[in-house]
Amino acid sequence: MDLLKKTIDSIEGQNETSRTQANERLDQLIMPHWALGRLMDLALDLAGICSSVSPSVARKTIVVMAGDHGITDSGVSLFPQEVTVEMVRGFVNGVAGINVLAKQAGADVKVVDMGVAGDLSALVAAGNILDRKIARGTANFAIGSAMSRERAVRALEAGISIAQELTDSTDLFGTGDMGIGNTSSSSALVATLCQLPIAEVVGRGTGLDDAQLEQKIRILEQALVLNNPDPADPIDVLSKVGGFEIAGIAGLVLGAAALKKPIVIDGFISTAGALLAGRLAPDSKEYMIAAHRSVEKGQVAALADLGKEPLLDLQFRLGEGTGAAVAMNLVEGAVAILTEMATFSEAAVSAAK
Amino acid sequence: MDLLKKTIDSIEGQNETSRTQANERLDQLIMPHWALGRLMDLALDLAGICSSVSPSVARKTIVVMAGDHGITDSGVSLFPQEVTVEMVRGFVNGVAGINVLAKQAGADVKVVDMGVAGDLSALVAAGNILDRKIARGTANFAIGSAMSRERAVRALEAGISIAQELTDSTDLFGTGDMGIGNTSSSSALVATLCQLPIAEVVGRGTGLDDAQLEQKIRILEQALVLNNPDPADPIDVLSKVGGFEIAGIAGLVLGAAALKKPIVIDGFISTAGALLAGRLAPDSKEYMIAAHRSVEKGQVAALADLGKEPLLDLQFRLGEGTGAAVAMNLVEGAVAILTEMATFSEAAVSAAK
Repeated sequence: MDLLKKTIDSIEGQNETSRTQANERLDQLIMPHWALGRLMDLALDLAGICSSVSPSVARKTIVVMAGDHGITDSGVSLFPQEVTVEMVRGFVNGVAGINVLAKQAGADVKVVDMGVAGDLSALVAAGNILDRKIARGTANFAIGSAMSRERAVRALEAGISIAQELTDSTDLFGTGDMGIGNTSSSSALVATLCQLPIAEVVGRGTGLDDAQLEQKIRILEQALVLNNPDPADPIDVLSKVGGFEIAGIAGLVLGAAALKKPIVIDGFISTAGALLAGRLAPDSKEYMIAAHRSVEKGQVAALADLGKEPLLDLQFRLGEGTGAAVAMNLVEGAVAILTEMATFSEAAVSAAK
Repeated sequence: MDLLKKTIDSIEGQNETSRTQANERLDQLIMPHWALGRLMDLALDLAGICSSVSPSVARKTIVVMAGDHGITDSGVSLFPQEVTVEMVRGFVNGVAGINVLAKQAGADVKVVDMGVAGDLSALVAAGNILDRKIARGTANFAIGSAMSRERAVRALEAGISIAQELTDSTDLFGTGDMGIGNTSSSSALVATLCQLPIAEVVGRGTGLDDAQLEQKIRILEQALVLNNPDPADPIDVLSKVGGFEIAGIAGLVLGAAALKKPIVIDGFISTAGALLAGRLAPDSKEYMIAAHRSVEKGQVAALADLGKEPLLDLQFRLGEGTGAAVAMNLVEGAVAILTEMATFSEAAVSAAK
């Protein structure tokens, strides 16, 4: 609990002086005023986050948090739980979506076992994944709490520790997730924290049909009645209906914010984790960059609650950090605008009349 | 006219066999079905365009077509015409928006003088820009035709010749523009070709206020009445209200399509050029990738007419090819998905039940 409390207490907002200095430069660049729109807004944020008008985002790391979910026993996903392990192997072998999109963006991928329901010790021993396993999957929150409060805190602190471990080699973090069943957990988290009916935040996950979607909604409705999580207590919500990898993402966000590093938030699962982080430390929101609008509709509510407009809308519904990877190109572009373009006076170009 | 006619006649649609083969592979990749959404749609197009399930987009060239517009005499822009020359120098010096965003995307920038109202011969002699100058700016189409029909054809053919000259070093083309006054010309082109009231397709350009916008609309309304361009004759429309750089973009699109190379279409000016190309050779539309939604509202109508949904919406209103540059990262990502991800059987991951 010490690490969590200390981390939360150390998070403060962006550097306003650097934002103002960046704004002055951006106003003078050789183009009509603010003609590169959202990348200029993003450049301001990066200056504020990094306390610099020359922020660096060269070293990029996408952290893929993996964990399993007991609620898959209740039939909320098309894919069996073993797929989580198989996909972790895919990440290690470099053949999954996140691998190829991270490579395109020049980002490293680090996979963390937060709570996969399988034996990944060989991959840990080989140095291929980071071990923060809390347990072999959460308990089924359709019949009780997903995890103890103590484990929830431990999972959050594991996420923080990953940010600390990677910070020396990372200018820009990205979040990612893998966990069969984790759209169910994320929907339950978002419904509770945003106080919305569950039906408004449940999507088709990996591809449910109408009847399966109805079943997922019914199961989650009952689970929320049973668990009755307290929306004013984020750790209560996490322990009752959360997931280890979602806690890991929330911790990573808190850790990055405490270290004053920007962090690109991927899709629905990551946004649920970011929402948790924002509830625990509201100033952490100033370090988050929303990557993309997911097909999963629960993300809309979470983004609105965070006050974030995503950069991309490419109809992704994969997770893994794929949206964060694509968005990292835009972050790099935003920094290039701020640091490499000339001002009107530097270039001796006539300004507007 | 021979080159234009031959080019148009040689353009045919995408290779359906390659599209089908790409679709089969994409259906089997280790993720829920089509979970990378629009990048997978894009991958299909790239396979169809390049007649290959392993299309290459490694060598990227953004062609910035520059030209001036006599209509600036009528007071349609905040910036003086000299800015076109100054910005061309900025492109050559590598300090403009397109330079930094192209560099981020790993793309080369080639600047073409299609009709700048200034002396750029020193830059041509130094090999810094390509010379296809038709004239020192168009005539003011508020008082007559922008250019002769013969010059319109010559400008289109110049664009085609640029595609031919660059094709040996280019897998992926991008369009860009520079020309003070060119939103006026583009608005007049789009209004005519899409048969819409001019007020529906006129925006604020480099930053007009309400009164200046009203004036721009009134000037363009009168110019369209005066010139009475024939919507069924794209070359008539181009010659009466077009621009040399817009013709160059249209020609570049036709040239790329004839060479079976994908071409990323930047913002409003480029979309107006692409619309012209689509009218001259409807199959050329199958080679176009719409980069981004511009702030300029006339682009909406042109994109709808072309049947294109842009990849990005970053509130850009700069041109130069900046949106095309950012979108090239997405094109590269689409190819990576198709060519580098494993299928379920290759990775031995359980597919959905």
